Amino acid sequence: MIVLHHLSDSRSSRIIWMLEELKVPYELKRYDRVEGRSPPEFYNLSPIGKSPVLVDDGKSYIESGAVVEHLVRKYGRELKPSENDLPQLEKYDFWTHYSEGSLMMLVVGLFVNNKAVDMSPFVSRFLVRKITNTINDHYYLKELYLNLDHIDDHLTTSKYFAGDYFTAADVQMSYPLLCLQPTILNTRPYPNIKRWLKGISSRPAFIAASEKSNDKYFRLFNETKFSKEEDEPEISSFSISA
Amino acid sequence: MIVLHHLSDSRSSRIIWMLEELKVPYELKRYDRVEGRSPPEFYNLSPIGKSPVLVDDGKSYIESGAVVEHLVRKYGRELKPSENDLPQLEKYDFWTHYSEGSLMMLVVGLFVNNKAVDMSPFVSRFLVRKITNTINDHYYLKELYLNLDHIDDHLTTSKYFAGDYFTAADVQMSYPLLCLQPTILNTRPYPNIKRWLKGISSRPAFIAASEKSNDKYFRLFNETKFSKEEDEPEISSFSISA
Ligand SMILES: N[C@@H](CCC(=O)N[C@@H](CS)C(=O)NCC(=O)O)C(=O)O
Ligand SMILES: N[C@@H](CCC(=O)N[C@@H](CS)C(=O)NCC(=O)O)C(=O)O
Repeated sequence: MIVLHHLSDSRSSRIIWMLEELKVPYELKRYDRVEGRSPPEFYNLSPIGKSPVLVDDGKSYIESGAVVEHLVRKYGRELKPSENDLPQLEKYDFWTHYSEGSLMMLVVGLFVNNKAVDMSPFVSRFLVRKITNTINDHYYLKELYLNLDHIDDHLTTSKYFAGDYFTAADVQMSYPLLCLQPTILNTRPYPNIKRWLKGISSRPAFIAASEKSNDKYFRLFNETKFSKEEDEPEISSFSISA
Repeated sequence: MIVLHHLSDSRSSRIIWMLEELKVPYELKRYDRVEGRSPPEFYNLSPIGKSPVLVDDGKSYIESGAVVEHLVRKYGRELKPSENDLPQLEKYDFWTHYSEGSLMMLVVGLFVNNKAVDMSPFVSRFLVRKITNTINDHYYLKELYLNLDHIDDHLTTSKYFAGDYFTAADVQMSYPLLCLQPTILNTRPYPNIKRWLKGISSRPAFIAASEKSNDKYFRLFNETKFSKEEDEPEISSFSISA
């Protein structure tokens, strides 16, 4: 039996999506955030108090990348390319690690700085905002634009993250992109990321996860309308590497 | 033919270690940092300009976790537990993802804030330090202590990260711990992390990588003496999960 301990508006929303893709039965336990963070009970589930926590047959799995590997191995081999499909497998490895190892780090850096502004006393808020904005402009945002260009370029020639079929790498990459969708992704075209988001969001499992998670980023995404010309960018036929 | 594009004092040092463990021939191309960052040439090697970049038979691999998976698959299956050894494989998955996906994010957060202090004009430096210190104390450092406790607890019962034998998960976990070793790891005991660091550092491939990389964190680590009582903590025999 699978139990997913789900912190509201968090990365575990993509694990709900994954479970829906796999069509395995699971119980969803919901936890509200306390002052924006994990509630104390979460520290009984995981030593670092972070979501997702997936319990399967009494064994706990934490860290999204490892949760996804466990689910793929036990319930959905078809969601990971096999070694016979090495170029796709190598892309799968890259994007499943990159999602948390490079991209989400930048998103969290922005979240932490924004939180610092919100939590600062009114008299110093202007100053805290000025300083954290400088850090964001010099590092987190600058790097994010570079990373989003890289992702959009990849999706120019690749329908899904690991190639021409859907894999768990798409699930793993979804959360940071959904987080960025209402803000940064909307300030520049990124036609291929938007085409990909549109594609995944029409999957029945994604729609079910949107409803069950009630995640704010899934919700904000669903409320967004794409403009006509960004609707269906062409997928070029150049071959791609990694 | 393998070429490792190595940025000085960077995560690619652990890839040198990995290559030395595998005993495969490789060429090491060194790049000095420019104002602490990747030099412009690095952006010709990788779209996001980050180290490591490993080129094998003309194909580029980036993102440490994916570089390690590629090397293990092609040259060193024995450095990853097989599916017959599922509990070790699950730990391997966890630690290889966790290293960049959770731990290194916190280290980078501290680095970025320290850099912001160093780069701020002299007149405002005191203020920038005060604000970034507050952010560090409330988030990055607080989380780091929790994470280091988690790592030390794991190593109480586990000789290596994935269990009782050495794997590439140890290589992947090494860099954040080496970065923290001269400072934060020295402010509290962490006897099991220190026992593990001592163990890996006596491996011939680690010693070769220390010399070839000339990495400052390998160097600082090698200069550190552990105190007697932290030398050989007992490994308890309780069974561990995840
Ligand atoms: N890389 C980890 C990150 C886990 C993480 O930071 N989870 C967030 C949810 S989005 C969390 O639990 N935050 C609550 C808190 O830090 O108090 C993973 O992918 O599992
Ligand atoms: N998660 C990525 C992180 C890569 C990364 O940030 N590398 C650093 C080296 S420690 C870098 O290239 N920094 C230079 C820069 O950002 O300019 C990985 O493990 O490959």
